[in-house]
Amino acid sequence: MNATDLEQLLNDIKSGKKDVQEAMETLRDFPYTDLGFARIDTHRELRTGYPEIVYCAGKTTEQVRAIFGFMNEKGNNIMGTRAPEEMFNAISQYFPEAVYYKEARIISINKKEVKPASQAIAVITAGTSDIPVAEEAAVTAELLGNNVIRIYDAGVAGIHRLVDKLPEIKKCRVAIVIAGMEGALASVIGGLVNMPIIAVPTSIGYGASFGGISALLAMLTSCAAGVTVVNIDNGFGAGFAASRINNL
Amino acid sequence: MNATDLEQLLNDIKSGKKDVQEAMETLRDFPYTDLGFARIDTHRELRTGYPEIVYCAGKTTEQVRAIFGFMNEKGNNIMGTRAPEEMFNAISQYFPEAVYYKEARIISINKKEVKPASQAIAVITAGTSDIPVAEEAAVTAELLGNNVIRIYDAGVAGIHRLVDKLPEIKKCRVAIVIAGMEGALASVIGGLVNMPIIAVPTSIGYGASFGGISALLAMLTSCAAGVTVVNIDNGFGAGFAASRINNL
Amino acid sequence: MNATDLEQLLNDIKSGKKDVQEAMETLRDFPYTDLGFARIDTHRELRTGYPEIVYCAGKTTEQVRAIFGFMNEKGNNIMGTRAPEEMFNAISQYFPEAVYYKEARIISINKKEVKPASQAIAVITAGTSDIPVAEEAAVTAELLGNNVIRIYDAGVAGIHRLVDKLPEIKKCRVAIVIAGMEGALASVIGGLVNMPIIAVPTSIGYGASFGGISALLAMLTSCAAGVTVVNIDNGFGAGFAASRINNL
Amino acid sequence: MNATDLEQLLNDIKSGKKDVQEAMETLRDFPYTDLGFARIDTHRELRTGYPEIVYCAGKTTEQVRAIFGFMNEKGNNIMGTRAPEEMFNAISQYFPEAVYYKEARIISINKKEVKPASQAIAVITAGTSDIPVAEEAAVTAELLGNNVIRIYDAGVAGIHRLVDKLPEIKKCRVAIVIAGMEGALASVIGGLVNMPIIAVPTSIGYGASFGGISALLAMLTSCAAGVTVVNIDNGFGAGFAASRINNL
Amino acid sequence: MNATDLEQLLNDIKSGKKDVQEAMETLRDFPYTDLGFARIDTHRELRTGYPEIVYCAGKTTEQVRAIFGFMNEKGNNIMGTRAPEEMFNAISQYFPEAVYYKEARIISINKKEVKPASQAIAVITAGTSDIPVAEEAAVTAELLGNNVIRIYDAGVAGIHRLVDKLPEIKKCRVAIVIAGMEGALASVIGGLVNMPIIAVPTSIGYGASFGGISALLAMLTSCAAGVTVVNIDNGFGAGFAASRINNL
Amino acid sequence: MNATDLEQLLNDIKSGKKDVQEAMETLRDFPYTDLGFARIDTHRELRTGYPEIVYCAGKTTEQVRAIFGFMNEKGNNIMGTRAPEEMFNAISQYFPEAVYYKEARIISINKKEVKPASQAIAVITAGTSDIPVAEEAAVTAELLGNNVIRIYDAGVAGIHRLVDKLPEIKKCRVAIVIAGMEGALASVIGGLVNMPIIAVPTSIGYGASFGGISALLAMLTSCAAGVTVVNIDNGFGAGFAASRINNL
Amino acid sequence: MNATDLEQLLNDIKSGKKDVQEAMETLRDFPYTDLGFARIDTHRELRTGYPEIVYCAGKTTEQVRAIFGFMNEKGNNIMGTRAPEEMFNAISQYFPEAVYYKEARIISINKKEVKPASQAIAVITAGTSDIPVAEEAAVTAELLGNNVIRIYDAGVAGIHRLVDKLPEIKKCRVAIVIAGMEGALASVIGGLVNMPIIAVPTSIGYGASFGGISALLAMLTSCAAGVTVVNIDNGFGAGFAASRINNL
Amino acid sequence: MNATDLEQLLNDIKSGKKDVQEAMETLRDFPYTDLGFARIDTHRELRTGYPEIVYCAGKTTEQVRAIFGFMNEKGNNIMGTRAPEEMFNAISQYFPEAVYYKEARIISINKKEVKPASQAIAVITAGTSDIPVAEEAAVTAELLGNNVIRIYDAGVAGIHRLVDKLPEIKKCRVAIVIAGMEGALASVIGGLVNMPIIAVPTSIGYGASFGGISALLAMLTSCAAGVTVVNIDNGFGAGFAASRINNL
Repeated sequence: MNATDLEQLLNDIKSGKKDVQEAMETLRDFPYTDLGFARIDTHRELRTGYPEIVYCAGKTTEQVRAIFGFMNEKGNNIMGTRAPEEMFNAISQYFPEAVYYKEARIISINKKEVKPASQAIAVITAGTSDIPVAEEAAVTAELLGNNVIRIYDAGVAGIHRLVDKLPEIKKCRVAIVIAGMEGALASVIGGLVNMPIIAVPTSIGYGASFGGISALLAMLTSCAAGVTVVNIDNGFGAGFAASRINNL
Repeated sequence: MNATDLEQLLNDIKSGKKDVQEAMETLRDFPYTDLGFARIDTHRELRTGYPEIVYCAGKTTEQVRAIFGFMNEKGNNIMGTRAPEEMFNAISQYFPEAVYYKEARIISINKKEVKPASQAIAVITAGTSDIPVAEEAAVTAELLGNNVIRIYDAGVAGIHRLVDKLPEIKKCRVAIVIAGMEGALASVIGGLVNMPIIAVPTSIGYGASFGGISALLAMLTSCAAGVTVVNIDNGFGAGFAASRINNL
Repeated sequence: MNATDLEQLLNDIKSGKKDVQEAMETLRDFPYTDLGFARIDTHRELRTGYPEIVYCAGKTTEQVRAIFGFMNEKGNNIMGTRAPEEMFNAISQYFPEAVYYKEARIISINKKEVKPASQAIAVITAGTSDIPVAEEAAVTAELLGNNVIRIYDAGVAGIHRLVDKLPEIKKCRVAIVIAGMEGALASVIGGLVNMPIIAVPTSIGYGASFGGISALLAMLTSCAAGVTVVNIDNGFGAGFAASRINNL
Repeated sequence: MNATDLEQLLNDIKSGKKDVQEAMETLRDFPYTDLGFARIDTHRELRTGYPEIVYCAGKTTEQVRAIFGFMNEKGNNIMGTRAPEEMFNAISQYFPEAVYYKEARIISINKKEVKPASQAIAVITAGTSDIPVAEEAAVTAELLGNNVIRIYDAGVAGIHRLVDKLPEIKKCRVAIVIAGMEGALASVIGGLVNMPIIAVPTSIGYGASFGGISALLAMLTSCAAGVTVVNIDNGFGAGFAASRINNL
Repeated sequence: MNATDLEQLLNDIKSGKKDVQEAMETLRDFPYTDLGFARIDTHRELRTGYPEIVYCAGKTTEQVRAIFGFMNEKGNNIMGTRAPEEMFNAISQYFPEAVYYKEARIISINKKEVKPASQAIAVITAGTSDIPVAEEAAVTAELLGNNVIRIYDAGVAGIHRLVDKLPEIKKCRVAIVIAGMEGALASVIGGLVNMPIIAVPTSIGYGASFGGISALLAMLTSCAAGVTVVNIDNGFGAGFAASRINNL
Repeated sequence: MNATDLEQLLNDIKSGKKDVQEAMETLRDFPYTDLGFARIDTHRELRTGYPEIVYCAGKTTEQVRAIFGFMNEKGNNIMGTRAPEEMFNAISQYFPEAVYYKEARIISINKKEVKPASQAIAVITAGTSDIPVAEEAAVTAELLGNNVIRIYDAGVAGIHRLVDKLPEIKKCRVAIVIAGMEGALASVIGGLVNMPIIAVPTSIGYGASFGGISALLAMLTSCAAGVTVVNIDNGFGAGFAASRINNL
Repeated sequence: MNATDLEQLLNDIKSGKKDVQEAMETLRDFPYTDLGFARIDTHRELRTGYPEIVYCAGKTTEQVRAIFGFMNEKGNNIMGTRAPEEMFNAISQYFPEAVYYKEARIISINKKEVKPASQAIAVITAGTSDIPVAEEAAVTAELLGNNVIRIYDAGVAGIHRLVDKLPEIKKCRVAIVIAGMEGALASVIGGLVNMPIIAVPTSIGYGASFGGISALLAMLTSCAAGVTVVNIDNGFGAGFAASRINNL
Repeated sequence: MNATDLEQLLNDIKSGKKDVQEAMETLRDFPYTDLGFARIDTHRELRTGYPEIVYCAGKTTEQVRAIFGFMNEKGNNIMGTRAPEEMFNAISQYFPEAVYYKEARIISINKKEVKPASQAIAVITAGTSDIPVAEEAAVTAELLGNNVIRIYDAGVAGIHRLVDKLPEIKKCRVAIVIAGMEGALASVIGGLVNMPIIAVPTSIGYGASFGGISALLAMLTSCAAGVTVVNIDNGFGAGFAASRINNL
């Protein structure tokens, strides 16, 4: 409900195009539909260019199906994150065109082509175990209209595995750096490249990793400027933010 | 020491332009000068377009003066962050052209004009007490070549104070959102605008604010996608990262 | 054992209505019955107007059945919270009039009508996943004699979904605001309405949500005055406290 | 900016009482005045019946004076919390009618009488050291129009010191319970009275008190239903919330 | 290996009763037998009057059986704590005289009568869910030679349920107070009685109980002097320490 | 207000010795005197054999003086803990018989001789820096009527410094073990002696000592049974609890 | 890619032994092979004398098999840590020469004999439950070419069980000390021997053990100099570091 | 008091060289002298080759002077750590040969030459602010008989500043890596060199550095094997442990 919309509405009232009750209705019902357990933002794609995104964890399969069904009728692209495989199996019976990205745990229904941005996003992990989070980031970015370069298992314990990939990374516009344990990879890449870096701590590790807290703290206190951080294991958030930057 | 530099060097050896000992020297001494207590990256500006930046906290005035002196001779722009006023007073006797941004605690010596990017960065705070962190972000961004729009004291407890500033914010390319206490401002702005948002938790508050931890956690777990986070009170980091994005 | 009761007792002794041994017995046995593993407060309803409430988690089904059985004989209303469905199934064989509120995990046996207060309580959640906690709050409040207005999935990431519900909320006397992740909803509503607000952090979220700690801290440090907080996921406590306020 | 205000404005436009530009202005400038470093909510008292309240900690004396000066012209009651004595001394030269509550650290300028609610608020502390927080709560409640009964040093280590005050407490409509260390007082009072209780943990104590965390956790996990909690040392928040409840 | 033993040994050498090699052997092999995975203190009962106690959690059934077997041959009383029921079932086939205390999770084999101390130990819990920890404390104390008075579900939310049990508690020599959630019971009893009190926080509760941390902190910071604390859920430790005090 | 007192009172009413109003007064005013900011338990010594104890930290010198003055008139022994030297200097002008234990930070006014228990209490520290906490424990125990044996700087890094003191320790009835850093001394002594041990973690140490948390956790999880723990730096609490045990 | 290698390469170019493209290839492909999900450091053994080590937790059986297969072809010794038994069962079908150390959870394929160092490493545990971590340390050290002396269940609660093993420990060159709960064993051994000590906290214990945090903090703050610490339960890290020291 | 000492003592008794009382005295008084507030280990240098080391923090100047005085008479080398400059000024009046290492805060009195080990120890810091901790490590190692190579300000944000120092580092036998903030330097060096590495987290940094916790956690969870960790800011501990390893 920005100032332009509001001014238009006021002008419509003044000119008699809309009466007051009607205007009140417009204002109230403007941007969402209420399913009782969820309020769907039906205009988000118009405003943002992005499809509506459903966080599936903590929702029942019935709830997700109802939300997808409503969105499907509107002809929107749909993306569901943190969806377990069983949820996809149940959902896909109703939406046969749905695609499941298993490692990323993402369900997608694409109705309209999204043209990718001209430059790519680099998705880099420290270890093999970080790949599921990386895939969530990469698939999110791809569905939002970006090409992605994946560089996995390039942690600092063998820094030569990273160094020769630098030319490839430097051709990208944004980098997502994903690491668990001590999360040092974000600082090292931050000292070697010049692009915006989004760091994702993962819950990989044991003992004093504390489910990702150590990596999170390390990334927040990184000595390399230009690094910003998202929540532990939040591949989606990193992919989404990187896409916003890449589409500037 | 990227692949192109290395290839050039190797070609120079092969062609006889450089001998091996000389090449070894070049490789070793390439990018910094050792002052004993500090190693100054003399080529950073060439590579990154940004001036060298000195984190003054934890350094003695003598150390800062020596670093500034070295950089000054090279003709670089200089920025010193987290500098207490007494340090500036001592420093400015040797560098009369130095400027002090008191609230931001930044010392700057500008040798070369930096042309600002075409779009601005919005710096928004929840409260009056967050202004010092905001000024650190804003002055950093300005010295790195950006126009900044400041919107201070727009916290969610009186959300109308924020709403009418939205048109101004939406004209910017990146937003820095700065808040202490419960840090809700980042989520609220994240739900209202479409640009990349860098959230800065501040140590403002008492009791269960825990020196900024509450705001930090709130920003990391923000329900609004597209928000990335920097360290508590890290205005510099936010201004630097925003500048990188704004200059893409 | 309040002062009035005591004075009456003393007067009864003085007047000879009661002898000392009898008075001692009255004082000792006054307010509860000892089942060995539990001491039931048989007079609570008289004093407070509320039915006795049993926290079922951590009790065996046998223990809950014994407590219900004892209370049932007294003709009290009974409410059991945090009861898993299997416990209800076992219990309902002995108390066929028992009702189970599945999402709220509450078992209720109503013996006497409770007349609802004149004004309603608003129960508002940020997301769909917060609904179980909301239902615990709502059902608790209803069983204690309140009308409840439910507004679910109104989080700040799409603040327009909240704004048009404000007139409805403002007609209530108390609001319960339930949110996980960064818990910003409590601050936003606290800045928009004038009634007492009870905030309930939920354990919804992942990573730096830390099982509800982030939302808890955010709510405790809320910049909006007039917000008080209960324990993580404590829908019952919020419903109970809201009912106390609504029945003033 | 509630629905009623908006509807009136729209009707004014339709009827020609206001033109669109003017309406836009009204909407934009509606509820605050921008001092640059602070945005003052000039209509809050009209809407809420409460004076505007300034949190002085983290503001400079100049900022507080400017805010007070602006509000003073509007004829509002003014309350400044967390104000050190030196700030009051500087402020009182410009506002000779200002009153300072030393233990509560509150500055007040009363322009209009506030008629107290019919019932009182009980403010109870566990120890002598909790008195400053208690005074902040009590003075806040009094300035907002409530009578307050103070019961100090009634901690559970000598529970008889509490029991004989129960009749007095029970006559109040709301109780504020303030305790540091293990915070047990909130649970004990919660088990003895029937009114809404707002618990305030204080940072009193040492070692494993952890600056009030122990008391905070104890109050949040209180076994007594009906207890809600505010931030550590947040006497103001407790007084404000209690006043809202007492004025229902 | 105390000074008396050593002096005796030295005298034996001097008098020729023992030669040096033999003395060395005595000293080395003195107090334990090495089973490879465990070193059993075979003389503990002689020195302390208490049976050897085996902490079964983290040991395999085979390891426990081997330790029991060794001790059994020596004719010692045996106590195994934290033993799951399946371990008892396996063990009891080899030691048919073994007894299992189900709620306490203790296996006991009694070879010699232990005469109880003249005064009893009071074991008091705040709630029904604390009973397993209480039983571990009570059974430990009983096996170590103490009479125990059990008072369960006497939490501060209904303080009258505690008050009438005070005469019984006051007849004991030591009290063990067991509570989860906010652990206030320890402070309240500490303010009402004069005996040594050992407080046991339990992991009962949810949310901000943090698995017993809240109760632990509350007990450590108790405003009632004379309260000492053991580890969360450490019923055994409380029973053991209470027994030491009761047998002084 | 125990059952015996109550029964006597009831009998007095029945026999006409007291009328109801008088009895109510007795019950209400029974055990304390209200100074406004503090409620003094005037009968504690009668009930407990111990002098009243004032925790001076967080109280003003005026408050402490008023409390001492009141108690002084009653002829009680007085002990004030956590008293800074300046407070003593101010206090001693009014109570010239007051004694100050500088390292222990205790003020004492002894009116009546306290006969020491037959056996002593051992107070043992790991390091020299733990001595102030040890003195608080030792002086508390002495003023409450105990002989104390002090063994300082006997930490486990040089375990032979402890071993030869064992005979002396074993002659005591209770041991207080005081250690900062990793707090291992409690476990080591707990494995060598048979008496009740009260462990006091101190805030001595740096880095990961976290102000005593490491020692606290180590003592709570001690592998030696029979160890109970008090709050960090709580020498008073340890001395008080040890005295209770020693006087059994 | 150390300076010697680089110099050789540069000389090869100058002398014409290698051309520039070939040199670039050598530099880029030097030390690893990319399997897509993992980058294997094929030259590590040459450089370090140690076999390549695979951390199996968080990898799928297919991934581990592919890595083993690649390494197997190169003729390297292979060690896989944190491998569950099912993974070994699946793996051993492809590599029949693979050996499984069950308690240590290590898979090993030995192609070349590793000659052990002249002195042994002592691996000491406080309890029986620490044995799995100890075995991970011991087997790691053995596979890396060290003799190991195992001393299990020698905790400080019965310090005599440790003392008589000191001569054996003192013959070793390095000691690994493994303990959960309060971790005091590291301090005690650190005070008794003169060799480098690597302390491993384990997650053994309950309540305030907090999954090994208490032992970790105790070991970090150990009053005995010469103790260094690895991550909780990190037997591998301790064995690896001890081997490095033992092979100096 | 090892087995050899004991055997000798026993033989002396048997042979009549010593009588029992004398032997008891020897055993008791063996290794320390009791100054009342401190027990000095007079034989440590004989046994360990290292001078006695006094931790000065938390001791009064008088205590330190008395300890130094005692040791001085014995002719021992003396080292005092964490000594503020004022303490040195006071001490040096009594011991004019005392030397003060200002950045390291170490006082040293050298009586006997210590011959350095054949290989050096590398002390590397990430930043300029880490130098005081590094100096504590370096001076400790030097006083204990080691040559030290200092490499300061070589953090990962400019990794080329580290790479060219690798040949120098690789010539050392042990490396001490010192870093605050995110502590990534330990992992990076751990991946580049083959020697034992002792990591020292420093309290340098702000916000989410949490006084060194972030660096500590990062170092404990380092993906590079062979890294062990000491307490935050514990330069002494690192220097001491490195010296032990270097002198193997």
